[in-house]
Amino acid sequence: MNGRNIKLVIAYDGTDFCGWQRQENGRTVQGEIEQALQKIHGQPVNLTGSGRTDSGVHALGQAANFYDATGNIPADRFVHAINSLLPQDVRILESCETTPEFHARFSACSRTYRYQFICCRPVLPFENRYNLHLRRTPAINTLNAYGRLLLGETDCSIFAGAGDSSITAGKSTNRYIYKSQFYIEGNRLIFEICANAFLRNMVRSIAGTFLHYEERNTPPGKLGEIIASGERNLAGPTLPPHGLFLWKVDY
Amino acid sequence: MNGRNIKLVIAYDGTDFCGWQRQENGRTVQGEIEQALQKIHGQPVNLTGSGRTDSGVHALGQAANFYDATGNIPADRFVHAINSLLPQDVRILESCETTPEFHARFSACSRTYRYQFICCRPVLPFENRYNLHLRRTPAINTLNAYGRLLLGETDCSIFAGAGDSSITAGKSTNRYIYKSQFYIEGNRLIFEICANAFLRNMVRSIAGTFLHYEERNTPPGKLGEIIASGERNLAGPTLPPHGLFLWKVDY
Repeated sequence: MNGRNIKLVIAYDGTDFCGWQRQENGRTVQGEIEQALQKIHGQPVNLTGSGRTDSGVHALGQAANFYDATGNIPADRFVHAINSLLPQDVRILESCETTPEFHARFSACSRTYRYQFICCRPVLPFENRYNLHLRRTPAINTLNAYGRLLLGETDCSIFAGAGDSSITAGKSTNRYIYKSQFYIEGNRLIFEICANAFLRNMVRSIAGTFLHYEERNTPPGKLGEIIASGERNLAGPTLPPHGLFLWKVDY
Repeated sequence: MNGRNIKLVIAYDGTDFCGWQRQENGRTVQGEIEQALQKIHGQPVNLTGSGRTDSGVHALGQAANFYDATGNIPADRFVHAINSLLPQDVRILESCETTPEFHARFSACSRTYRYQFICCRPVLPFENRYNLHLRRTPAINTLNAYGRLLLGETDCSIFAGAGDSSITAGKSTNRYIYKSQFYIEGNRLIFEICANAFLRNMVRSIAGTFLHYEERNTPPGKLGEIIASGERNLAGPTLPPHGLFLWKVDY
């Protein structure tokens, strides 16, 4: 590729997007940013994201890169240049020049997601787009015992959503989980999970499965057997997208 | 009035409302809650708010009261009963029975408003409905020197919006200001002001006037003369509504 390789850190409110990935019909984050880049460059520009996010999922720290052909915009000025052309529900937070071989998807060491819950109190009007409302307060100790089951290299196939590309291509569904923890932050319950990579819908399926079995007082050992079984019909419900944030991508 | 007197604490996202006060045409917070109360009671119910908020202004702690004719709903259950009939951008946070003579407007000792700013950084997509973006960082010491000018009984006429009822009715424009302070909270600048009552657009006009004169390095003494002059054409611009919250009402 010619041109400087520019890395972006991107935040978006996923509510009104059909996810990250460019589509023919449907407003997407990649599509909006590529349109802005095309206006700046006067020609189409390909933007590579660290990975897709589903329709309705938010991001605080999505990462992406593109090859800049303008040559005359200081790398850190792309923040302002792109933001001035973007709608308010997507913002570039950082831009910098990186090495020519940097690839937002393949160079990533890990992705961190957060799922946010509000338990047993009215959800403020300012919170309802970004948090799932639970009518009960789950046992955090139990959820964390479940969370520890995932640490290390784990076959995550029971958490794969329909049409996941690893499943359909017959590739490994093992993922390396570095963190998988529930904690209280302010007046919310957070599920934070960090892994080298994720299957489709995996975070929402894990969180939904954990809540499903916690409510039924399932011992962690039993849940461990269920996960190891690979039986996808034993997974709990996949939670809705609006509580989920792609929090950061580490390189 | 017959029936128990029920006090509500209410939060709303003002973005999609034409303000608090019921209107023939236009979606309002009072209108939405009165519709819900009518469904519960089977007859129209009048809801009295602590005061109006303008179109686009938010509330975390608006207060209101109504006389309940059902007689059979425990007072604290109105939270759930009303919320189940309300759209997501307005939420009842508390409900309780109060004294028969309690009046949400006339019994209020003070109202507290907050205006929220984000200075010199990109506004996250989750923040843009609730914060004003400033492209510079103002001098907080100067703003606070201005803020102290207002403390005590102050003629606020230069901060009155067009059509303010005290101005048009020739009533006093003096207000008792208990707090008027700028401070940093997290990564935002907050202007918090507490007074017995407010003129129309008063908080947005004060904040806009302070920023206007701070940018021009106006000494506090000079601004004090401007405020005392009562010349409304010397006020700065009225800031947009979306940074403003009715934070709480004290009784």
